[in-house]
Amino acid sequence: MPFLTALVAAAGRGRRLGLGYNKVFLPLKGRPLLSYSLEVLGRSPLVQAVIVVTTPEDVDRCWAIIGPQYAKGIRVVEGGKERQDSVGKGLKALPPETEFVAIHDAARPLLTEELLAKVVKAALETGAAIAAVPVQDTIKRCGAAELVERTVNREGLWAAQTPQVFRRDWLEEAHRRARAEGWRATDDASLVERCGYPVKLVPGDYANIKITTPVDLVLATALLEAREKIKIE
Amino acid sequence: MPFLTALVAAAGRGRRLGLGYNKVFLPLKGRPLLSYSLEVLGRSPLVQAVIVVTTPEDVDRCWAIIGPQYAKGIRVVEGGKERQDSVGKGLKALPPETEFVAIHDAARPLLTEELLAKVVKAALETGAAIAAVPVQDTIKRCGAAELVERTVNREGLWAAQTPQVFRRDWLEEAHRRARAEGWRATDDASLVERCGYPVKLVPGDYANIKITTPVDLVLATALLEAREKIKIE
Repeated sequence: MPFLTALVAAAGRGRRLGLGYNKVFLPLKGRPLLSYSLEVLGRSPLVQAVIVVTTPEDVDRCWAIIGPQYAKGIRVVEGGKERQDSVGKGLKALPPETEFVAIHDAARPLLTEELLAKVVKAALETGAAIAAVPVQDTIKRCGAAELVERTVNREGLWAAQTPQVFRRDWLEEAHRRARAEGWRATDDASLVERCGYPVKLVPGDYANIKITTPVDLVLATALLEAREKIKIE
Repeated sequence: MPFLTALVAAAGRGRRLGLGYNKVFLPLKGRPLLSYSLEVLGRSPLVQAVIVVTTPEDVDRCWAIIGPQYAKGIRVVEGGKERQDSVGKGLKALPPETEFVAIHDAARPLLTEELLAKVVKAALETGAAIAAVPVQDTIKRCGAAELVERTVNREGLWAAQTPQVFRRDWLEEAHRRARAEGWRATDDASLVERCGYPVKLVPGDYANIKITTPVDLVLATALLEAREKIKIE
């Protein structure tokens, strides 16, 4: 089993939630968002170490959530201006023995051990794998004056999620080149792809939603409650 | 006020829900899915008539939901093999005085009068308008062996919803040409776009979800309950 470090992106600003604070501290069924993924990562036998990347002012608050009893080696590091910069800073704090890195957004509290295991398994085989779900909506490209420019062929379109798991050397190279060449992307896989490495799509879970708007909090609460009651996809 | 007929697509097969019956009859908080949009359309002063298009075997069941007291002129017609064929059949049953057609999927029970009114207003101005929301996910194009072929630039990508509202003549022309030339599309706007007509994107509502998988039923229930309790986006 290679040494896998989980890197939790927890520097969300919560602008679209109308918050004056980092959304990873939002209460979800009485517990902060961040605590959900930390619990899954702490429990998974696949994960050897955890790094939480947060805003400089939130480091203490993250430690308060982690608590002194956390199941494995964990560090909290200060992130950068944007998500990509934060992940880059997290990479500098990897335990030296790290061979694979699993990146996960703290804003996805519905992570399960099953999904994590599927993505890790694929990444161990191919070097890079991400959770993703087929796009179900009809997608339009918007042109001038908010008119449809064209309908995008949705066949073969997938919506990326996290976890995203990579060989450490590929991910480090991708972030190094992104910094050097000014690449900006909305996920880490994009940078790895741009370096020419293959990235495997692993069928994720439609319930593994990202908390972005107030609607999403309602949904996450319902999904958590449903998990306790009925088996969903 | 032009004469607007609402056309409700209610011939869903429910395959992905693992149902042996049309998903528009699924109970949502004790009432069939179909009843939610029918109620909104029946209440809206913008809608002069309603046509429900369903599978031949479900016509009576639709009438049972509509009931004898329905607020306005309504017909139930038999649909075709696919959604596009069903809408085509519904168009043949339009009241002759129809000037605009509002197409709505019965699988979107969270339709609100507000959203309907916004889309109708835009369509009256421009001839064609659809509810849609900006895509929030990072989108990947899947290539061979389930590897990412490329990341699609999500800037300017919108996920189409219903209602979709069109000038009757544009919509009829679009369906006529689609039949003649064998066009297949996942929404009606695509056909209208293909005829060269402008289609306006109207910011919809992230809560206006389509029921496709069991997860969605959980979400719809939560959203309906939240609407009763708190103001969401």
